Amino acid sequence: MNKTFNFFLVSDSTGETVDRIYLALKAQFPKNIYKIHHFAFMRTTTQTATLIKACKGTENPIILYTLVEKKTTNHIINECKAFNIPCFGLLDYLIPQFEKIFKQKATLKPSGQHVLNKEYYKKIEAMQFTLQHDDGQKLDTAVDADIIILGVSRTSKTPTSLYLGERGFKVSNIPLVQHQILPDNIFKSSATKVGLVIDPSRLFDVRKTRINILNDKLSSAYINMNTIETEIKTSKKIFTLNKIPIIDVTRKSVEETAAAIIKIIEIQKQND
Amino acid sequence: MNKTFNFFLVSDSTGETVDRIYLALKAQFPKNIYKIHHFAFMRTTTQTATLIKACKGTENPIILYTLVEKKTTNHIINECKAFNIPCFGLLDYLIPQFEKIFKQKATLKPSGQHVLNKEYYKKIEAMQFTLQHDDGQKLDTAVDADIIILGVSRTSKTPTSLYLGERGFKVSNIPLVQHQILPDNIFKSSATKVGLVIDPSRLFDVRKTRINILNDKLSSAYINMNTIETEIKTSKKIFTLNKIPIIDVTRKSVEETAAAIIKIIEIQKQND
Repeated sequence: MNKTFNFFLVSDSTGETVDRIYLALKAQFPKNIYKIHHFAFMRTTTQTATLIKACKGTENPIILYTLVEKKTTNHIINECKAFNIPCFGLLDYLIPQFEKIFKQKATLKPSGQHVLNKEYYKKIEAMQFTLQHDDGQKLDTAVDADIIILGVSRTSKTPTSLYLGERGFKVSNIPLVQHQILPDNIFKSSATKVGLVIDPSRLFDVRKTRINILNDKLSSAYINMNTIETEIKTSKKIFTLNKIPIIDVTRKSVEETAAAIIKIIEIQKQND
Repeated sequence: MNKTFNFFLVSDSTGETVDRIYLALKAQFPKNIYKIHHFAFMRTTTQTATLIKACKGTENPIILYTLVEKKTTNHIINECKAFNIPCFGLLDYLIPQFEKIFKQKATLKPSGQHVLNKEYYKKIEAMQFTLQHDDGQKLDTAVDADIIILGVSRTSKTPTSLYLGERGFKVSNIPLVQHQILPDNIFKSSATKVGLVIDPSRLFDVRKTRINILNDKLSSAYINMNTIETEIKTSKKIFTLNKIPIIDVTRKSVEETAAAIIKIIEIQKQND
């Protein structure tokens, strides 16, 4: 019998940090059933009272929070003690430790991560660039990217690009289409270039699913096993010829592919 | 004098969790100068040896890690003790606590978050849908979204949509263009609808910057203050008339707007 646990993810801002820790913990205990309840922008004790009331109405409630403001935090801690609700402040231990290391007080200002500063606007610009250069669009400005991702259709170029865009990288993703020759400046660009490949039989499955879902009217070559094998082989040749590092995405999630790309960038930086 | 601290973000997988905690801590101590070094996919003691060597070569090194495997973790802890490097395992305290609460052992498998399961494919599908329905594309299938975002040009509809797409929501974003009438089924759709508005003078600045950056040849009405004021006023009227909740994005980051949208969804769920 697997129990259901109700997780209350509480934050004084958007809740991304508490979300990530929750996912990391959940991955370590895959057998339970989890329900999540988001409480973002928690700033007042009226709001914490609503939270505690909601907790009491569910079975096995657990609170994870990333609040920095003392009044709301203390209110939650005291209520949780009184009602025996497990409650974890993810920064409560770390912030005092870092006050010691840095020899300064933490600002304890909520939402500190979301200042609309230069860094933020750079990220938005990166997302915009990435979107405009999806799937081989605007080939003439593709060379201005931080990263150029190449690969045949359905090697997860687009989600990987969006993910990297959201992390502040300007990405161009360019599909390799048979018998089409890419402009030379793509290969000469100073952007980090990566080639995505995938196991042909896996690609066959992915493309078949796509056709079923989208009712795409695509040519039969798109899901012909021989053509797929040739496509992948040709793409590998292009990558090798142009000294482009290859990532096999067969058993990789988008996040893992993105992390592998970031690793390549860092290795190249070190070698510069 | 603000010190420079070298943060080593160490993970056995993609490093998203450790990244978030680092950002949360950094936001609390904005005066320092930070350099970050990513060490993702840390799985062997040979890799941890490289990490410790890199730490020793920098000033004020600090390690944050989200490793679950004992051998690598112990190696790092011992080396850090020997060389006096501050070192924080972000899950080391939480996992044993949750073993008690759940009355079961953690799997301690690295990369547990990135299983290619149903949930993962749902997310990829959501990103795909969101991309295909950006900026009023495919209006006929826009109604199948989880969320429909409406607003005049440059109210951050696109980055907000991509952000929500990456979180597993299918989003359609539709620009409100003057004198254009949206199909009725958009308003009748069961998707959560939100209207984005912005302070007219802020919108004026944003659009002006856009024209400068992209060399866009847009009509002068696009950056005419009177027209902008009318556009915003009209959009508010449409939202009110159709009972669409309004979010003012003037001082909001994309993450905050997205979190506000998720909050609206949860309130609507509760009222259903």
